[in-house]
Amino acid sequence: MYLPDHFKETDPAAIAALVKANPLATIVAQGNDGLFANHIPLIMVADTQLIGHIARANDMHRILADGQEILAVFQGTHGYISPNWYPTKAETHQQVPTWNYEVVHLHGRIRFQHDEKSKRAVVGRLTKHFETAQNGAQAWKMSDAPQDYMTARFAEIVAFEIDVTRVLAKAKLSQNKSPIDAQGAAKMLAENGQGALSERMIKKLAPNTD
Amino acid sequence: MYLPDHFKETDPAAIAALVKANPLATIVAQGNDGLFANHIPLIMVADTQLIGHIARANDMHRILADGQEILAVFQGTHGYISPNWYPTKAETHQQVPTWNYEVVHLHGRIRFQHDEKSKRAVVGRLTKHFETAQNGAQAWKMSDAPQDYMTARFAEIVAFEIDVTRVLAKAKLSQNKSPIDAQGAAKMLAENGQGALSERMIKKLAPNTD
Repeated sequence: MYLPDHFKETDPAAIAALVKANPLATIVAQGNDGLFANHIPLIMVADTQLIGHIARANDMHRILADGQEILAVFQGTHGYISPNWYPTKAETHQQVPTWNYEVVHLHGRIRFQHDEKSKRAVVGRLTKHFETAQNGAQAWKMSDAPQDYMTARFAEIVAFEIDVTRVLAKAKLSQNKSPIDAQGAAKMLAENGQGALSERMIKKLAPNTD
Repeated sequence: MYLPDHFKETDPAAIAALVKANPLATIVAQGNDGLFANHIPLIMVADTQLIGHIARANDMHRILADGQEILAVFQGTHGYISPNWYPTKAETHQQVPTWNYEVVHLHGRIRFQHDEKSKRAVVGRLTKHFETAQNGAQAWKMSDAPQDYMTARFAEIVAFEIDVTRVLAKAKLSQNKSPIDAQGAAKMLAENGQGALSERMIKKLAPNTD
């Protein structure tokens, strides 16, 4: 990824927060027949490990050898930035359009797990994570479902771990602009229904107010 | 991509609409040093062609040979679906969590353009597209900026075309569920601030009401 210094995100907490808030990863790999991608929710269970599962019918676990390189892309909020939104544009007319976004690229090696014990462990952690976030005390648990039903579901999936070998994170949030222009763009985003991106830009402009 | 028949999107108009509504592509490729990805807004200028531009400082145009295979991933709205949201869950308890999403994968061959005429043509089309959508009659135009300023900006970018060779599109919107369960999940998404995904599911459930 093109990653100039002013857009580089190096804070491990900020990187982990983006992954947690945007867990649907695009997992990309190179197979014998070319590039392919799958969209899979992942969670970080350690600074250098991700876990997830796929359908057994998904060829990913047949195409990729154990330990093969994959890239997991996590994307945060993003949006178009019009030159009209920079206050200095009216004075100098020296502005061009751009797109703001935040992304995390986790390169790693994938290992699939076919035994039911590993699959139960992975699904249990994912379920606890997403259900507690969604439903709190009413969180769905695997034990809510009949045992034979769940056994059949586990036969239909393959679990995996990704050992992260390289982290690249980019926060392209107008840090390369003057504060007045960055604030102007953030204000216009908020007025145009893009409050989440606007907030990210404001936060980036004043990192010490966290 | 794992693409079972019930989630396959084959309507060219629906595919073009997703790309238009979610233009920030993740462009993935395999270089000598491994997989890499860049996030670039693209527009379709014909059924089989995308255009865009990158910073000249972005190594993508040095790493990739002209005509090399890339994958451009476009992602629509998405969200977690709790088993608790299916009305039949309360009766049978035979439900598990999942994630709904819509994606388009455009495989193609990329060709870079280094001459200013091509760069002006690409930037002109992108600018017209995004500025008209954002600002209508107040759309920013390249001619708003000083000529020498724009000439310097063009020196800093490289344009490209992608000839699309393969289209894969997936709309995972609970079509594999009973209508009562899909509608129940859509209702709960709407109640949880996920109106956009909810609407896509409702639309998918009743495709003839478009």
